[in-house]
Amino acid sequence: MDPSLLDVFISEVIGTGLLLLLGAGVVANVILPKTKGNGGGWLLINFGWGLAVFAGVFAAWQSGAHINPAVTFGLLANGVEEYATGVPVTVASTLVYVAGQLLGAFLGAVLAFVAYKPHFDQEAEAGIKLAVFSTGPELRSYGWNFVTEVIGTFVLVYIVIQFGNTPNELGPLAVALLVVGIGASLGGPTGYAINPARDLGPRIAHALLPIKGKGSSDWGYAWVPIAGPIVGGVLAGLLAAAIG
Amino acid sequence: MDPSLLDVFISEVIGTGLLLLLGAGVVANVILPKTKGNGGGWLLINFGWGLAVFAGVFAAWQSGAHINPAVTFGLLANGVEEYATGVPVTVASTLVYVAGQLLGAFLGAVLAFVAYKPHFDQEAEAGIKLAVFSTGPELRSYGWNFVTEVIGTFVLVYIVIQFGNTPNELGPLAVALLVVGIGASLGGPTGYAINPARDLGPRIAHALLPIKGKGSSDWGYAWVPIAGPIVGGVLAGLLAAAIG
Amino acid sequence: MDPSLLDVFISEVIGTGLLLLLGAGVVANVILPKTKGNGGGWLLINFGWGLAVFAGVFAAWQSGAHINPAVTFGLLANGVEEYATGVPVTVASTLVYVAGQLLGAFLGAVLAFVAYKPHFDQEAEAGIKLAVFSTGPELRSYGWNFVTEVIGTFVLVYIVIQFGNTPNELGPLAVALLVVGIGASLGGPTGYAINPARDLGPRIAHALLPIKGKGSSDWGYAWVPIAGPIVGGVLAGLLAAAIG
Amino acid sequence: MDPSLLDVFISEVIGTGLLLLLGAGVVANVILPKTKGNGGGWLLINFGWGLAVFAGVFAAWQSGAHINPAVTFGLLANGVEEYATGVPVTVASTLVYVAGQLLGAFLGAVLAFVAYKPHFDQEAEAGIKLAVFSTGPELRSYGWNFVTEVIGTFVLVYIVIQFGNTPNELGPLAVALLVVGIGASLGGPTGYAINPARDLGPRIAHALLPIKGKGSSDWGYAWVPIAGPIVGGVLAGLLAAAIG
Repeated sequence: MDPSLLDVFISEVIGTGLLLLLGAGVVANVILPKTKGNGGGWLLINFGWGLAVFAGVFAAWQSGAHINPAVTFGLLANGVEEYATGVPVTVASTLVYVAGQLLGAFLGAVLAFVAYKPHFDQEAEAGIKLAVFSTGPELRSYGWNFVTEVIGTFVLVYIVIQFGNTPNELGPLAVALLVVGIGASLGGPTGYAINPARDLGPRIAHALLPIKGKGSSDWGYAWVPIAGPIVGGVLAGLLAAAIG
Repeated sequence: MDPSLLDVFISEVIGTGLLLLLGAGVVANVILPKTKGNGGGWLLINFGWGLAVFAGVFAAWQSGAHINPAVTFGLLANGVEEYATGVPVTVASTLVYVAGQLLGAFLGAVLAFVAYKPHFDQEAEAGIKLAVFSTGPELRSYGWNFVTEVIGTFVLVYIVIQFGNTPNELGPLAVALLVVGIGASLGGPTGYAINPARDLGPRIAHALLPIKGKGSSDWGYAWVPIAGPIVGGVLAGLLAAAIG
Repeated sequence: MDPSLLDVFISEVIGTGLLLLLGAGVVANVILPKTKGNGGGWLLINFGWGLAVFAGVFAAWQSGAHINPAVTFGLLANGVEEYATGVPVTVASTLVYVAGQLLGAFLGAVLAFVAYKPHFDQEAEAGIKLAVFSTGPELRSYGWNFVTEVIGTFVLVYIVIQFGNTPNELGPLAVALLVVGIGASLGGPTGYAINPARDLGPRIAHALLPIKGKGSSDWGYAWVPIAGPIVGGVLAGLLAAAIG
Repeated sequence: MDPSLLDVFISEVIGTGLLLLLGAGVVANVILPKTKGNGGGWLLINFGWGLAVFAGVFAAWQSGAHINPAVTFGLLANGVEEYATGVPVTVASTLVYVAGQLLGAFLGAVLAFVAYKPHFDQEAEAGIKLAVFSTGPELRSYGWNFVTEVIGTFVLVYIVIQFGNTPNELGPLAVALLVVGIGASLGGPTGYAINPARDLGPRIAHALLPIKGKGSSDWGYAWVPIAGPIVGGVLAGLLAAAIG
């Protein structure tokens, strides 16, 4: 039976929720005080986020597992007829995808906060606590940071669109490894949001949650990991359509 | 031919035994003195446990490779008719699974002790020697530690139930990578038991074995990695059944 | 429909472009100042390059994803009739492959420079900035460095030729993991170019780009990562043909 | 066409040769002076060896890719009728397997020496140079070291025998990951030979090669990584046959 828009919504909420629970979780593990993974390094963070995608894609199979508005907009720009088997591309379905992704990302970040609550209660720089939720650049330069997010998301969405062309039985592992690779290679400057919901949902959670020693939610930067991934995803969809 | 309950028992003993041999083994390698992997970091531990699951699942194929009571109870709560091909869900089969898992976890931990015997004979904090066997929280807070174990196990059992829905030919690699991811992301506070047998069997082994400089087996904490995973697994089974 | 030579050219440009974007990217992340992955270690670099191959192969499926002149020359020496389905081996097609690879590698390195622009603007040794683009030996000894590149590329091309013989559904993951392994094992002396385009294209980019504090492009070494991989690839093609 | 014994011999020579080239290579990269991977850690070594198996298995597909006498003897003890498709179990074929494995391991270690020649010419402890070739215990205790090798090899051979039973399309990746896991978990005390040819062949190479500042080849320990793996492999074959 074809999924209803409610099915799509629930699927994207759960998938993006797991993405953020595990994605924010690995950052918490590496940077919050007194965790077992403290100081575990960038490759640990890359694998954590990649496998967060892995889990999220398994959970969101019914909606085609976008779990990222840049993927949804990239497919739209690419001219696909369906977002997933039985889910036609319409204004309504597009909005349902993005709404589910944002809500899921918010809820996933809240759950990660709950899982690491005693560690958030420890003394730590406010910036470290924000970094569990949202991305931030190492060298603040909105223009270049935007470009980096465009490039990273372009790679993600362009390759996701190619997955059907190359024979393999990797399933969700393909996108998981792709995200490990993008993080390893292009995450250095901005922390690779490459997904507007992944950044905005948790930033809202950070603003609302009663986090001990919480500082600014850095709203001045918030547009970069929204606009960059959308531009990158749309460019990828257009180029993939042009090359055929 | 359908497996008998004895087949199921042996399968779960061997699978959970390999899980603990390799799982306790990687912890021993990272934290005991004078090993080649000493100080190898959290990602090494995550891969070690994930690949311990990988080996255990191959060995326990005949019983459907639960090797974890939280999986067994999660499937029960989910309302499955069979625990594995030809193994109906009954009180007897449920007990056989859990008994096999507990015995296997105990035996696997004993074998890991044997494999690292000269390193256990070195001077080291008693807490380090216990940590090879059983999990313990970095910040002791039974309530939050319980919640963390609930969340981690929920993710494990919920995704395991979804595996059949998403096309892929990963086989045991899927659950192995899922466990790498849960460890990376949600293992920071408590060390991710996410499996009551994995914690209780080795804790009994620790209590019984003649380990040099052995301290307390920390029975005060022992209920957390039993109750948390069972609650998390059951919630996952129920939610997966509700969403359909 | 069989791909035209223009299709092949575009496919190799994009595939090799992604290879270098992600490959040069991970090196930038690990060695440039103030990145999130700074000091992330050799395994991070190995996974970054391996997954760069992974992405490049998905993008270049239409041309059989050589993305490396050593692969093209190795297949030529092996005596294959087609470089990819519908692409006969001719002088023209050989030149199109290599030209696409060189241009792609150049463009990918430029994109990596763009993605890390603010980090290139930081103070750092000139040699570190060059190392993002091209390989260089730890102990300069042209003869031995050449031999190391021959051996590494031999392994790459020999195993790539075997992929069809062993049943598996790994697709692009097989070559990705092979490159992780070659980097881990044989990358220590020279940084594993194992691909003439991967080294020469970015070296040209380094010579042309306005990089702050840029030093020499080290053209004295440039022949080693060209000649070594070609010799290694051809030897692999010949040996594989001889063994059958 | 069924492979001849000469085909089997060549296949095992090449497969075990690649195993040792890449396996000894990663150790050289991590422990020899002035390499790019120096100090890269245990997980790097584990992935290097695991992917060395990956390459070796692809290269040795014609002979069933034993590349390890413990696998050959384990299959013999298990009572299989063929060592690979078209290769009956006989005294002659058994000897051909083991001879090919030993010669391949010797040659692979020589090639690794060649690839890292300038680094072997640097000043370093004699024990470090030996460790590129052969395993050695961190705490010398022949009895316990033997037991550790028995356990590690038992796990390897037992799971390899199970591979056919669990549906997956991982091919050579399954055994590669198994070896990563065994190294992570059980390699801490002795460096996981788990393969008599892997240790003996390179030890002979170490004894014969003109290595600068070379010390003892430690023949006193050499029986442990021969006898332990053979006992472990045979036990695994027998247990797998008994359980059925």
